[in-house]
Amino acid sequence: MQISAFSDFALRILLYLAVAGDRQVTAREIAERYGLSFDHLAKAAGWLVREGYVKATRGRGGGMRLAKPPSEISIGTVLRMSEAGSGLVECMRPGPTRCIIAKVCGLAPILAEAHEAFYRTLDGRTLADALPDYQALVEIYAASEPNVQQR
Amino acid sequence: MQISAFSDFALRILLYLAVAGDRQVTAREIAERYGLSFDHLAKAAGWLVREGYVKATRGRGGGMRLAKPPSEISIGTVLRMSEAGSGLVECMRPGPTRCIIAKVCGLAPILAEAHEAFYRTLDGRTLADALPDYQALVEIYAASEPNVQQR
Repeated sequence: MQISAFSDFALRILLYLAVAGDRQVTAREIAERYGLSFDHLAKAAGWLVREGYVKATRGRGGGMRLAKPPSEISIGTVLRMSEAGSGLVECMRPGPTRCIIAKVCGLAPILAEAHEAFYRTLDGRTLADALPDYQALVEIYAASEPNVQQR
Repeated sequence: MQISAFSDFALRILLYLAVAGDRQVTAREIAERYGLSFDHLAKAAGWLVREGYVKATRGRGGGMRLAKPPSEISIGTVLRMSEAGSGLVECMRPGPTRCIIAKVCGLAPILAEAHEAFYRTLDGRTLADALPDYQALVEIYAASEPNVQQR
């Protein structure tokens, strides 16, 4: 069972911005520190801005920062939205299913129940809960050499 | 969040064999009825045989049938094994992770807890629980025209 790279990137951006605090951070800086594709990371960042989790400022000295405190960002809520449309199995994805037994399948409701148990566990957990060793993260981010070529 | 096509196919094979009962069924028949790739389905079927869920008989009139009653096949156990190695996020997959914060990340344990809640929900559910409308399944399987070219 996997969550999408898109969701993974969104969560990593949120962690990075939580540690950065009030400092304005660019998507390029985050991509370089994690050694991730800038294009994919920027897509997740744009989504976080549209969803109101991140505030972006344009122009020189601009960048991103969290739009609300980490304790107000539910990991369950973020993932439910970023994973919307990525259904656990084919019949749970948007659009018509090709599975011939979909209408009478007893497996789909069981899988849906487990799927919901996954999200329910995360609903009450916030970004603040994901930062137990805040200082260690500050140091790792600060020390990390960009893994991709810089301009 | 998605489970692999491999797991999806394995579960569909189990459902089909549960409905077929004592009849010997070939992987080709199952692939044709569902309209799925024979090669991919055969791979999942081979795995089910190796794991002891399915008994295969070679030769003319041979085929597959369940090796144990549906009530003794835990969906959680099947999925835990078929999804082994497909880790929820990159740092949970086998082999070294490329994520720089893996050692101090507070997100991974939270995701792992939710992942476990997913499987715990399924551990107590069996293939028999996934067959609430057994007769409807019998009829759908019997009526389904092969969706792929027959020899």
